Amino acid sequence: MSGLQAAFRYRVGRIVVDSASEIIRLAALSEGRQRVLLRVTPGVDANVHRAVTTGTEDQKFGFSLSSGAAADAVQRVLAHPELELAGLHCHLGSQLTDLSAYETAAARLIGLMAATRDRAGLTLAELNLGGGHAVPYLPEDADFDLAGFADRVRRVVAAECARLRFPVPRLVVEPGRAIVNRAMVTLYRVVAIKHAVGVRTFVAVNGGMSDNPRPELYGARYPVHLVRPSHAPVETVTVAGRHCEAGDVLAADVPLPADLRPGDLLAVPGTGAYNHSMASNYNLVGRPPVVAVRGGSARVLIRRETSSDLLVRDVGL
Amino acid sequence: MSGLQAAFRYRVGRIVVDSASEIIRLAALSEGRQRVLLRVTPGVDANVHRAVTTGTEDQKFGFSLSSGAAADAVQRVLAHPELELAGLHCHLGSQLTDLSAYETAAARLIGLMAATRDRAGLTLAELNLGGGHAVPYLPEDADFDLAGFADRVRRVVAAECARLRFPVPRLVVEPGRAIVNRAMVTLYRVVAIKHAVGVRTFVAVNGGMSDNPRPELYGARYPVHLVRPSHAPVETVTVAGRHCEAGDVLAADVPLPADLRPGDLLAVPGTGAYNHSMASNYNLVGRPPVVAVRGGSARVLIRRETSSDLLVRDVGL
Repeated sequence: MSGLQAAFRYRVGRIVVDSASEIIRLAALSEGRQRVLLRVTPGVDANVHRAVTTGTEDQKFGFSLSSGAAADAVQRVLAHPELELAGLHCHLGSQLTDLSAYETAAARLIGLMAATRDRAGLTLAELNLGGGHAVPYLPEDADFDLAGFADRVRRVVAAECARLRFPVPRLVVEPGRAIVNRAMVTLYRVVAIKHAVGVRTFVAVNGGMSDNPRPELYGARYPVHLVRPSHAPVETVTVAGRHCEAGDVLAADVPLPADLRPGDLLAVPGTGAYNHSMASNYNLVGRPPVVAVRGGSARVLIRRETSSDLLVRDVGL
Repeated sequence: MSGLQAAFRYRVGRIVVDSASEIIRLAALSEGRQRVLLRVTPGVDANVHRAVTTGTEDQKFGFSLSSGAAADAVQRVLAHPELELAGLHCHLGSQLTDLSAYETAAARLIGLMAATRDRAGLTLAELNLGGGHAVPYLPEDADFDLAGFADRVRRVVAAECARLRFPVPRLVVEPGRAIVNRAMVTLYRVVAIKHAVGVRTFVAVNGGMSDNPRPELYGARYPVHLVRPSHAPVETVTVAGRHCEAGDVLAADVPLPADLRPGDLLAVPGTGAYNHSMASNYNLVGRPPVVAVRGGSARVLIRRETSSDLLVRDVGL
């Protein structure tokens, strides 16, 4: 069984719940006994973009640890014989570099596990610390210290378990972006160059927020490379998308050779996660193909979206 | 010929250009003589969201009037016999309520038209003022004063033309959102309610940023209505989407009856523009159907997107 198959089997075997009404609904819908993980917000602010901060109290995910909602939710799950509480889950956010946030969260969740044993006599065997491991987008971004993460989290879990005389649970992490992000490079064709003299040079490409909404959603920044040799001096330009809004800018103020011209190919690396999966058909633009490349040979994984694809659901005209 | 057919014929008959490199490319690609509108940035800041401000200088659209780039672009188009300069275009932004912005832009573009006549002996016959006419989203939003807009813009154009002894051009406007936005209401099913005690009540629905990214992209605000009678007291809740990020919030701090429960339908009006057209498959969520309703009967216009639809382009696995 591959790692991905194992991850999938794990995911379908457990359902993560975030609210009391979900517990009731899940119990009503369960056929057989359903394994459940409770998502706990451990009150850790990992200092990431507001849209992807999930470890704090005021958000849609999880049961608050500090308010007692998490402990209460444990009791609610235990009251339903259709549900089996497999363990605890948390997810602190996205693009985390601060290892101490994971340490704090792990220690607090072990605390709730020990409290659950003391109160309900149930020893939870699984601790899922979610994902959020940062990946570098720009050359100056630090890479996530994976070995340090593994070492530090395991030490904290071991120490906290020893202190509370609790058996070390099975540790699960969910690295999504950290696995797939660097596997993809997006290629764009330059369609026009606008020299707004004294203001800025805009390089317009044949894609944009329909294939990568992250710059506009989160202020995400990407490097851009010209896909041919050039010895021209470098100038600072802004790479804009093709869509009908001024905010459709893929990369502001990036260095590119001054001999850039319409027809050139540009490469934007690090687009394997939350790019094609968030793509839209804004302005009726079809989504680009996804092509696998290895050892000089290429294979289409996802074909280009055609005009027929865009119209296939239009049944009432 | 319907208004929409006329609008389409108008659009395909003219191509709007934004940069010198586009003029060269268009001339090279033209079969026969291609009508062109030059998009001019008239230096009018309409005070709207930065992502949709398009009348100012520092953005990807248009030739700057104040820098002389627009007058220069007129000469460039005239140098290409394959191109016919049909007129001038501008687009000031989206959700504009300030009629004086349109007046200022119209007057400035008439000025460039008169200058073009004086310098090149060419009388441009078409002035396209783009769109951007605001539509109300919240009950307290003012409606766009369409009659006032028509009246004031025509007066300014007439006065400016009289002053410069220039024949009044054909005036074109492009109201997109103003036509279609109020034609659509999005229906959501409540799937869970999370009471974060002392913080906030979250109502989770079976849609979100995949069908309406506008709240996250632009901070757009929508009203939310319960689709059944209720005499319960009203409380302030936050309606959250189903997607895997904390920022997926459709409407923060909206009033809804306190007896709201999972299974209830919620209606969000004013979703006819930039909603289904910007929809994605984020988290592999299929796009909802679009249903036309008139006089008590309903007809599916766009069918629901299925799992098969989502997989149809996966050819390489």
